[in-house]
Amino acid sequence: VSTVDLPDIQRTHPEHCLAINWVGVRDLRSPLEVEIDGRATATVATLSLAVALNSNERGTHMSRFVEEIAAFDRPLSASSVADLLRDLAGRLDARSARIDASFPFFLRRQAPVSGSEALVDYEGRVRAVLDDGIAVVTLGVRVPVTSLCPCSKEISDYGAHSQRGYVSIDVRIGDGRLDLADLVTVAEDAASAPIYALLKREDERHVTMTAYDKPAFVEDIARSVAMALSKDPRAASFSVDVENQESIHSHSAWAQILSSP
Amino acid sequence: VSTVDLPDIQRTHPEHCLAINWVGVRDLRSPLEVEIDGRATATVATLSLAVALNSNERGTHMSRFVEEIAAFDRPLSASSVADLLRDLAGRLDARSARIDASFPFFLRRQAPVSGSEALVDYEGRVRAVLDDGIAVVTLGVRVPVTSLCPCSKEISDYGAHSQRGYVSIDVRIGDGRLDLADLVTVAEDAASAPIYALLKREDERHVTMTAYDKPAFVEDIARSVAMALSKDPRAASFSVDVENQESIHSHSAWAQILSSP
Amino acid sequence: VSTVDLPDIQRTHPEHCLAINWVGVRDLRSPLEVEIDGRATATVATLSLAVALNSNERGTHMSRFVEEIAAFDRPLSASSVADLLRDLAGRLDARSARIDASFPFFLRRQAPVSGSEALVDYEGRVRAVLDDGIAVVTLGVRVPVTSLCPCSKEISDYGAHSQRGYVSIDVRIGDGRLDLADLVTVAEDAASAPIYALLKREDERHVTMTAYDKPAFVEDIARSVAMALSKDPRAASFSVDVENQESIHSHSAWAQILSSP
Amino acid sequence: VSTVDLPDIQRTHPEHCLAINWVGVRDLRSPLEVEIDGRATATVATLSLAVALNSNERGTHMSRFVEEIAAFDRPLSASSVADLLRDLAGRLDARSARIDASFPFFLRRQAPVSGSEALVDYEGRVRAVLDDGIAVVTLGVRVPVTSLCPCSKEISDYGAHSQRGYVSIDVRIGDGRLDLADLVTVAEDAASAPIYALLKREDERHVTMTAYDKPAFVEDIARSVAMALSKDPRAASFSVDVENQESIHSHSAWAQILSSP
Repeated sequence: VSTVDLPDIQRTHPEHCLAINWVGVRDLRSPLEVEIDGRATATVATLSLAVALNSNERGTHMSRFVEEIAAFDRPLSASSVADLLRDLAGRLDARSARIDASFPFFLRRQAPVSGSEALVDYEGRVRAVLDDGIAVVTLGVRVPVTSLCPCSKEISDYGAHSQRGYVSIDVRIGDGRLDLADLVTVAEDAASAPIYALLKREDERHVTMTAYDKPAFVEDIARSVAMALSKDPRAASFSVDVENQESIHSHSAWAQILSSP
Repeated sequence: VSTVDLPDIQRTHPEHCLAINWVGVRDLRSPLEVEIDGRATATVATLSLAVALNSNERGTHMSRFVEEIAAFDRPLSASSVADLLRDLAGRLDARSARIDASFPFFLRRQAPVSGSEALVDYEGRVRAVLDDGIAVVTLGVRVPVTSLCPCSKEISDYGAHSQRGYVSIDVRIGDGRLDLADLVTVAEDAASAPIYALLKREDERHVTMTAYDKPAFVEDIARSVAMALSKDPRAASFSVDVENQESIHSHSAWAQILSSP
Repeated sequence: VSTVDLPDIQRTHPEHCLAINWVGVRDLRSPLEVEIDGRATATVATLSLAVALNSNERGTHMSRFVEEIAAFDRPLSASSVADLLRDLAGRLDARSARIDASFPFFLRRQAPVSGSEALVDYEGRVRAVLDDGIAVVTLGVRVPVTSLCPCSKEISDYGAHSQRGYVSIDVRIGDGRLDLADLVTVAEDAASAPIYALLKREDERHVTMTAYDKPAFVEDIARSVAMALSKDPRAASFSVDVENQESIHSHSAWAQILSSP
Repeated sequence: VSTVDLPDIQRTHPEHCLAINWVGVRDLRSPLEVEIDGRATATVATLSLAVALNSNERGTHMSRFVEEIAAFDRPLSASSVADLLRDLAGRLDARSARIDASFPFFLRRQAPVSGSEALVDYEGRVRAVLDDGIAVVTLGVRVPVTSLCPCSKEISDYGAHSQRGYVSIDVRIGDGRLDLADLVTVAEDAASAPIYALLKREDERHVTMTAYDKPAFVEDIARSVAMALSKDPRAASFSVDVENQESIHSHSAWAQILSSP
């Protein structure tokens, strides 16, 4: 049996004549390179790719999404993802298309006193949406940080509870070149202290006192990030979500700021 | 030390004078009752509660969110969640407030031939948002279904691959009373076959042939659900997301339709 | 077509004549009652049930596992799970059988100063294994706690990092009646401080200073739990696993002690 | 303050004089290379490292575990992980040590008719345990497969339900060189059909009919894998776990075979 003889059910007419906003593949894993701190670095991404489907077409061609990823051999960046997006839309003859990628990435960090080096892990994400010829690219990170509670410090004779927090930032790209590593810096600067993979005793002393000297609520962290991004021309718009995995509760405290469009 | 003497850091002024869209608690688990098929049934929910915070207030009072849930003793429904929402906004003196709850729920299903009964599990969710005095309530479900591929059936001499799919529906409530069980029915009617917890051999024969007789792409299922909801006055607006966990791939196929607002 | 006419493939002979250690159903969700603090309380459990299969039988009868759960109408406890286990083995004519159940549960806790009450959530689990007529039942909990680092406190001029930890305990039942609530107490007593859902300011002051006064490594917590259990005749054997979700790292510290058999 | 002046709390005596089976770090993420199909390939691993601690030592030195990983620059393999294990034990002066690594990996697969190529994703894991000088290394995989129900096929006039299954194999290394890719082959050979990332229509026809021609219960798949491994001198011992994510149920069917030690 050759392909020519096999019926193409996707091309038949649907029972209900309704346009579909997004159709494609989800949870597709692929090794790829991502541009971090200006350099291509290997990681493993989880991808979702989709296109819009007209009301009179029954189905999309799922294998083409996979072929696009299989043929993609550039490091993922704001510009390469926009090119991939246009290829995808063209290949599937679609008016709208979108790509979502999420992946772990790593930055080499020096411990603050000993200078010992190790990699800290972050979550990165890239979203690209093409609509009527316009591609909009959003870069995002999820950054673990230390947060120390200002209320606990103020009301107690000694000590103050701290915990791991996560600062999530998503930025729609504006003017200039934005790197995921830049967003990590914005997140870490807003917290009580950055997180490290490797700390010797003299470093642990340093980060303990640094955090105590800079207590921050989720509200404080969210506002600091929003303030930094609102002044940055590289951010056309942004959202910031801060979650503290409270050490005195089994639930989290969270705050979210969305920039005006 | 009495409470009166303890400083209230949350009431001080923030360093950055920015309004916060949402601040509150997340991943708070609580046993509660949910109204399913007209009856209050016990489940365990994961909750998120938040309010808007003015630009000149440093922090919200996190313990009040927990107190609201601790004091809530009604079955969760479209009307009770709206009341809880107003209480929350009033208690925290906030212009906007929101509540998100997700929880497993169960419906007793009869196997199609033997009539054997057992409970099938679904995910439910309720979202309520209050903005300037208007409460908007959204009900949602995630329903496991059987899907059988129309293309595989058509191009093969025998057989056709099937797999577990998940139909997610979220509906903003319009006119009349909407029950989570109704949304489950809409989802199951659109699939190749509903899923059961308990099937004897004669039932398995029935569902195997039922699914073969009713092949459906993610696109087909999404359109059927959208068609049913677009005719239902109880749905002011809706979104439907269909995901097939393909048995021939390790990724999923998915389709999404969002109603016009 | 009646059931009588349908072939029973499971009863045919397997291609490879090998005994199977465990075969059954997994990730079956069911609402059920669990005995907590001496009282039956509603929750939602995730269950796994299995039996051993002889080398000359091709397959087990999966629907019978579901029927057993559908017919089970007692609160889950050490004695009821042992009865369920024997029913299951008898029903499937199996020499060995096992049941694993995990579920969230809640205990009402009073804040230490204000006395405010709210529910704290824990994970519980029950495992029952039947082998040649002997049923062995294991009860387990996963308890969130506050831990404060002894090293950080000692080496810093002020402050000390704290974080959320999780103490997991599994106990094979020995002499006397053991309750999941008892295991929660053992875990909380070993930590720097218990976790609460609801804390007013005076309570937060109290738990902050309590934790600072009782710093504990994962090693310290594991040893305290092991010491308490080794003296308790209700524990025939046990394992304890402590994990601190470090606030200064994005990885966890962990320690594990297994009792001698 | 220099390190020399900072007290080393870990070296003090514990309150309870109990040996600790395992203490170390967990959920440490690191980019690394793994040997797959004889070639070093980049991936991101999640690691757990631990040592045994004597009853008279209060704590281990957590930063040394991270230093070991930071300094490890070889592709992960049965031999390199054994070397890492000995380094770790030596560095921490411990009698026992263990390392657990899990990571995604990819194999290039050709579609069965069109020959189209794309990467399929698998989960790999390596465990190494050192006890009194003896290192035991275990390699494992989790492989997605297609399974088609023999009962459904036999009792139905047409069709047969299929679903995604996962075959998990863990093998303690015996004589000769074992590769993760070999374990993938064992898993895929036992299933109704392997899974592909990219299938054109002629390929989908082929896998649909292949699976229909080779129905397999979880019991059948587990036995086929066990039979293959029991004849392989490279497997000193093994466990196999097969889980079918049933398309007609929302729970899974599973079977497990453990080799005699």
